[in-house]
Amino acid sequence: MEELDLKRQQIFGKHVKRLREEKGLSQDDIAARCRVTKGSLSVIENGNRNFSFTTLLALAKALEVEPKTLLDIDFELFSE
Amino acid sequence: MEELDLKRQQIFGKHVKRLREEKGLSQDDIAARCRVTKGSLSVIENGNRNFSFTTLLALAKALEVEPKTLLDIDFELFSE
Repeated sequence: MEELDLKRQQIFGKHVKRLREEKGLSQDDIAARCRVTKGSLSVIENGNRNFSFTTLLALAKALEVEPKTLLDIDFELFSE
Repeated sequence: MEELDLKRQQIFGKHVKRLREEKGLSQDDIAARCRVTKGSLSVIENGNRNFSFTTLLALAKALEVEPKTLLDIDFELFSE
């Protein structure tokens, strides 16, 4: 796992956590709404999983946001 | 693999192909720009792979678009 990939997973994880908390939802609430378990969500929010496309869609649905909103953050993709 | 997941992978794949072709890039060009092989890109564009988060970022970089642009399509997520 490249260091940059890990950093971007962490950027994404913090963003998902922030969105979830802004909506007043717990990890249990998300787990109840989709097939992402509480344990998996915790690992994702800590930036320690290279999750799949369908997991991203499941999270977007559970958070009631469009998928692109989950990527509406600066991953510093073009500043390497 | 749920039928809806497959459909959304196909929606994504067509979108990536459209973006690539709009930029006049071949699958070989994309493969040369990032670690996604030509074979993998072809499978993704045909909607037959549940690819990872870091692959999505690699594709965005190779296509010179922000990651959220790759998800700026209607996945009919909330119309089930």
